[in-house]
Amino acid sequence: MPRLKLTLAYTGTRFAGLQIQPGCRTVQGEVEAVLARMLNGPVRIDMAARTDSGVHALGQVVHLDVPESKMRIPWRKAINALLPDDVCVTEVEVVPPEFHSRFSATSKVYAYTIWSELEFILPQRKPFVWRMAGLNQTAMDKAMQHFVGRHDFKSFQNVGTPIRDTRRTVARFWREPGQTQWETVYRIQADGFLKQMVRNIIGCLVAVGRGKLCPNDIPALIAVRDRSLAPPTAPSRGLCLERIFFDVKADSTGSRPDEEELDEGD
Amino acid sequence: MPRLKLTLAYTGTRFAGLQIQPGCRTVQGEVEAVLARMLNGPVRIDMAARTDSGVHALGQVVHLDVPESKMRIPWRKAINALLPDDVCVTEVEVVPPEFHSRFSATSKVYAYTIWSELEFILPQRKPFVWRMAGLNQTAMDKAMQHFVGRHDFKSFQNVGTPIRDTRRTVARFWREPGQTQWETVYRIQADGFLKQMVRNIIGCLVAVGRGKLCPNDIPALIAVRDRSLAPPTAPSRGLCLERIFFDVKADSTGSRPDEEELDEGD
Repeated sequence: MPRLKLTLAYTGTRFAGLQIQPGCRTVQGEVEAVLARMLNGPVRIDMAARTDSGVHALGQVVHLDVPESKMRIPWRKAINALLPDDVCVTEVEVVPPEFHSRFSATSKVYAYTIWSELEFILPQRKPFVWRMAGLNQTAMDKAMQHFVGRHDFKSFQNVGTPIRDTRRTVARFWREPGQTQWETVYRIQADGFLKQMVRNIIGCLVAVGRGKLCPNDIPALIAVRDRSLAPPTAPSRGLCLERIFFDVKADSTGSRPDEEELDEGD
Repeated sequence: MPRLKLTLAYTGTRFAGLQIQPGCRTVQGEVEAVLARMLNGPVRIDMAARTDSGVHALGQVVHLDVPESKMRIPWRKAINALLPDDVCVTEVEVVPPEFHSRFSATSKVYAYTIWSELEFILPQRKPFVWRMAGLNQTAMDKAMQHFVGRHDFKSFQNVGTPIRDTRRTVARFWREPGQTQWETVYRIQADGFLKQMVRNIIGCLVAVGRGKLCPNDIPALIAVRDRSLAPPTAPSRGLCLERIFFDVKADSTGSRPDEEELDEGD
């Protein structure tokens, strides 16, 4: 059966996260319900990254196999016609059968937006930012560099997660101006993310910006491998899964990781 | 009593417009309710531009007089603490007593955003755009220039409006890329706008983009001064009141227009 890769965008505000959960409205649940209608039967999709309740996406990826007979459907148009307002499919591609939304992902980019004005937030931007005024940007810039590279990020993983290998490689961690004069976007690219890793790193970065930690405290916080010693998690609304990079060939040559070791995502 | 100028931003989605209306949730109603709490009595504010239901703002302006005794209030912080999520005050300034949010306004800038992708709209952008794919941009660029200058815009005024002098001067009408690759923003600056004038002009521009009108039909449409002959109104959600320019001196030297002739705004 041909395999389709779907790229999804959504606002996480009204979702109880991405993964299907009984009695909760989830991205996976909404997308699977639409696909089930189109394919006349239950469908289970696999997501590249598990995003928590409230987290947004511009470039989430899922894949599914569809019967050859359904390939004449104008997929993108048809799915979008049935999806609710807060999730859409921006791209549909036919991919080789060895493509897997989770196993073939080589790196992901998350963006976290901080709103710097204390007294107001533009209503247009409120669902997408975390308000945190008066941060020391110079200290934060120094702190960011300590996260780059291959590290054991256990201190930045949600407690109780059953992942054994907590080492990940952060390729880039940089900031850019946001959509308005009051926003700064922190982007982080890594080969994988532990559960709530981005939000925990941002929580730590903000602690540095507020003078509660020094940039040079970061290496020790990483080395201690203890979540309870790191600053609190940043709220989900500032986070957006922007892009996922894939390498199907890497996957098809046998480098597929142990399934138990897969990221929970952020 | 000192006079305060408040700059407001709001998303129009959940408002039945700006002006106070019995039984409806309006921007004016929400702001007046907050001010009444702060000043311990009923407050009536005057708005620079009347925006319709669904229209957004980044730079709406109102003014009000407050007792000297209330001047120690941290106004911006206090108002924002009481306002609902979809409206905020971005700036509070003390202005001379001759400043008037409507009478002192010399020009306004509105932005209208068109979404060019037919099959989806990013959920993040849905409340702020009008989807209209396959437009002929070259024809639209030519058409835009016909609106610039001093014209009688009666053909672009909502029917049944009691404005006698329907001449306005469009200083600029230009387009810029939007926040995403699928958006184009059309900005228009004029000394004043008739009711629904921007949305009617955009409706006309889109008719040109769809090949239903030629750019060279615009001068005749303007000259005919008949709303029923012009294309339909564009939806409110794509429209945003971005900025209002003021000249208090012009107002205080006696050039205040007849109140009956004031713009209804868009």
